[in-house]
Amino acid sequence: MTTPSLDEQFRLLSDAVVDQPNAAEFRARLAEAAAAGRPLRVKLGADPSAPDLHLGHAVVLKKLRAFQECGHTVVFIVGDFTGMIGDPSGKSLTRPQLSREQVMANAKTYQEQVFRLLDPEKTEIHFNSEWFGGMTFENVIRLASHVTIAQLLARDDFAKRYAYRAPIALSEFLYPLVQAYDSVMVKADVELGGTDQLFNLLLGREIQKAHGQAPQIVMTLPLLVGLDGVNKMSKSLGNYIAFNDPAKEVYGKAMSIPDEGMWPYFRLLLGKGDAEVAGLRAAVADGSRHPRAVKDELAKALVTMLHGAEEAETASAEFARVFAQKELPSDIPVVSVPAAETGILSLLVAAGLAHGTSEAKRLVLGGAVKMDDEKIADPKAVVTPKDGAVLRAGKRAFAKLAVQA
Amino acid sequence: MTTPSLDEQFRLLSDAVVDQPNAAEFRARLAEAAAAGRPLRVKLGADPSAPDLHLGHAVVLKKLRAFQECGHTVVFIVGDFTGMIGDPSGKSLTRPQLSREQVMANAKTYQEQVFRLLDPEKTEIHFNSEWFGGMTFENVIRLASHVTIAQLLARDDFAKRYAYRAPIALSEFLYPLVQAYDSVMVKADVELGGTDQLFNLLLGREIQKAHGQAPQIVMTLPLLVGLDGVNKMSKSLGNYIAFNDPAKEVYGKAMSIPDEGMWPYFRLLLGKGDAEVAGLRAAVADGSRHPRAVKDELAKALVTMLHGAEEAETASAEFARVFAQKELPSDIPVVSVPAAETGILSLLVAAGLAHGTSEAKRLVLGGAVKMDDEKIADPKAVVTPKDGAVLRAGKRAFAKLAVQA
Repeated sequence: MTTPSLDEQFRLLSDAVVDQPNAAEFRARLAEAAAAGRPLRVKLGADPSAPDLHLGHAVVLKKLRAFQECGHTVVFIVGDFTGMIGDPSGKSLTRPQLSREQVMANAKTYQEQVFRLLDPEKTEIHFNSEWFGGMTFENVIRLASHVTIAQLLARDDFAKRYAYRAPIALSEFLYPLVQAYDSVMVKADVELGGTDQLFNLLLGREIQKAHGQAPQIVMTLPLLVGLDGVNKMSKSLGNYIAFNDPAKEVYGKAMSIPDEGMWPYFRLLLGKGDAEVAGLRAAVADGSRHPRAVKDELAKALVTMLHGAEEAETASAEFARVFAQKELPSDIPVVSVPAAETGILSLLVAAGLAHGTSEAKRLVLGGAVKMDDEKIADPKAVVTPKDGAVLRAGKRAFAKLAVQA
Repeated sequence: MTTPSLDEQFRLLSDAVVDQPNAAEFRARLAEAAAAGRPLRVKLGADPSAPDLHLGHAVVLKKLRAFQECGHTVVFIVGDFTGMIGDPSGKSLTRPQLSREQVMANAKTYQEQVFRLLDPEKTEIHFNSEWFGGMTFENVIRLASHVTIAQLLARDDFAKRYAYRAPIALSEFLYPLVQAYDSVMVKADVELGGTDQLFNLLLGREIQKAHGQAPQIVMTLPLLVGLDGVNKMSKSLGNYIAFNDPAKEVYGKAMSIPDEGMWPYFRLLLGKGDAEVAGLRAAVADGSRHPRAVKDELAKALVTMLHGAEEAETASAEFARVFAQKELPSDIPVVSVPAAETGILSLLVAAGLAHGTSEAKRLVLGGAVKMDDEKIADPKAVVTPKDGAVLRAGKRAFAKLAVQA
């Protein structure tokens, strides 16, 4: 694979970005790094208290992958320092205190998950306790001298809490510095994050400047809408697809997305451009493509991303089968039948789906009879009734078999 | 000396205090300590960047001395930790960065100064780098979790700066925690300070509680009005008497206080009660005591406090002599006289204070002639004119001698 031109890299890496306050710097940094023959160092921080990644995280990871495909290095930072402290004020549910063992276990899980999207060969992993474990109070004060109270209170969540008189512990003001100083320690050229991270990313620039470094280029990526098509994807809302969901579940969850909710997934996770997505939308709108088929394409792509193409095909086929079964009515009468092998016509009569063998024969010959979605077209067929099997005769007549002991 | 009763201690130690939000706790703590046979630990923190103490500081030191006289222990903390950091944001002039050597030199000076008022036998001295030098970032975060941004922004000076959009570095929010945690480390029962220290003192209570300690009792003492009788005594206003001022200067500066400005000194530094001060005031008002005599009493007491009684007497006498000289008019004519020894009568004529030797003799015999406040009563006296000496004949006739080279 040849490295794309700088213009092409700029276009590709800036695609679908929300905030890009340093676009000109980014272009210059790309050129400078290329001239120096060095890759850019592109940082992503990970909170080790939530090791279960979902597709919301994949938006950023896909972008990091794009950087790697342009030859750059991803610097992945496990925030074990703060993870092991937790929130000593006990006010935050998102900062439980973790043991060294938990952090290491979570970091391992993380790594396993991100490497489904990232290239391990172009990824550096760091634990930030490396540099914070030994940091003294004196150096904390020096670090804290580079940021003002007004700056921190301008951060959206702090501003709201302050306005509503909800307590903000002083310790919480120290956490953005942790993330910012990570950028200094790994000499980040670029840091990516969700739109809610813009403040922290920009603070990294200030702290790098204070340490005599070129400030990192900051880009934020959109939050992915969840399976409900309304709220952002999050674990707490339950509207997510986890990296660790089995293939079948990934597929099924994707198929549950409302039709109008699909497009951001195509745009942000499958790398489709705006024009391509618009084309798909139009095809669905004018009926030239069925929404379910388009969604199947999406769902398979997501399973492929997380579990590979083979699993995707299997999941799609299995879903089709289950989906068909799902069209059964929910109030199928249960009929008790003998356990022994029997002719299909007798079984239809025993199950109350035909008044006699001649009606039964007509139904079989008409192609209306199925057992568990398997058509039985031979009136001489001999079957072994299975407990719970659904016997069907036409569109409206069903019976669930309860085999006599 | 017998220890005063608890009631008497309470009265004595609460006297002239401004803020005493924990009065009931104080009474209980006195009783509890007495029952346990232990002295109270009474804390005072010192800023090692300003080693030059003045009488404004003496208000607190006198109160600490009173605690010692009731058998309690003073815990004196040299804030060398913050002293050696300074203000890394460079925004504060009051936090210059000091070297280890400067801090030690300042601490020594401090010690020498406070022991003029405190009993060294009942004083513990600590340097807070003992416990902050090795404090990790993790423990800083734990400490910072016990205080909120709103609490800190409520501190008067921070509130003002925030309102005026003057930058407050995050590091500045860490400093009050330093003082508060000092209280934990020395297990302070009581902390004293100026009225501007109330916030920091109360924060010490919160941090002690968070560390499972009984919170310290907090008392603030009035700010002493300076020599101008208007503004608080401070080095920057130049209206101060320093502990290290020579005895003569202490005396002279005290004598320069306006009459109405004397009373706080009697009240806060000489241990006079309200009634006693009111009595003195009345005596001056009805003319039964001359204000200058009362001020002499004050000035001598202050010199005694800082330099001992003997120095006080000397300073008073010397001042009286200089003061008398000060009553000379400011436009004394300068007369040129020969350098040689001469009879007093010739000198009077040469200086133009007598028209002839007979008038001169009459003046001398009449006791009207003085050289530099020394009376010359013998018309045969021989004197050696000194350059700048003032020759006087009666209340209105003066000459300043300029000896011919």
